[in-house]
Amino acid sequence: MPADAATIRATVDAYCAAFTRRDRDAYVALFAEDAWIEDPVGSPRLLGHDAIGGFFDQSSSLAESIELRQTGPVRVPSSGGEAAFPMQARPNIGGTTFCVDIIDVMTFADDGKITTMRAFWDPAEMRPADD
Amino acid sequence: MPADAATIRATVDAYCAAFTRRDRDAYVALFAEDAWIEDPVGSPRLLGHDAIGGFFDQSSSLAESIELRQTGPVRVPSSGGEAAFPMQARPNIGGTTFCVDIIDVMTFADDGKITTMRAFWDPAEMRPADD
Repeated sequence: MPADAATIRATVDAYCAAFTRRDRDAYVALFAEDAWIEDPVGSPRLLGHDAIGGFFDQSSSLAESIELRQTGPVRVPSSGGEAAFPMQARPNIGGTTFCVDIIDVMTFADDGKITTMRAFWDPAEMRPADD
Repeated sequence: MPADAATIRATVDAYCAAFTRRDRDAYVALFAEDAWIEDPVGSPRLLGHDAIGGFFDQSSSLAESIELRQTGPVRVPSSGGEAAFPMQARPNIGGTTFCVDIIDVMTFADDGKITTMRAFWDPAEMRPADD
């Protein structure tokens, strides 16, 4: 049975929380072994836990901290197994918080692990946060 | 060259506006001839202008009016050609406005026409609007 809305929302919450608190092991464990990510959309897909862990390391190195903040509900169709949600990435660099708007589109295995993730955003739209 | 952010945002604005004002011809004309839509995600894909027009008619018949209201920025990756955006569908039925949260994920031809649309939402989450 495809992962349902409650399972998917719990995974998305855990995903944002693990990234924000820089918990690499918890972050990578949310993905299936053969998962891939495309972040941002249009960049090469990174396949498997090693590549996804490397993405986590590289992203985290860009700022002293980065919050992933959900900015609206996770949309899960009744057929389950996939979802889309809006968020902001909010890096703090030298005491200044920046932000950029992202929508992540994900698919999920029946056990709730993330199987694919595509992140819709443009790094050129990063700006100082006003909230 | 893939459709850029300005072109895509203009198409998305026109899409929401045409649906809201019940302008079937303007709505259908935003799609490529061989476009398909999957709304909601998990339902059968509807291919081509006739099927998309039929979807417009069927959706519009469900309420006296339906506003498509964007609730955040359209996210367009720098590679162009695709986008995701959050919105609410806000049907008015018998004087009461309802709402449901949706994320549309679209691809676009080089001329800016919509080639595919997948709408992430669950009709069971329709509720009276409190704004």
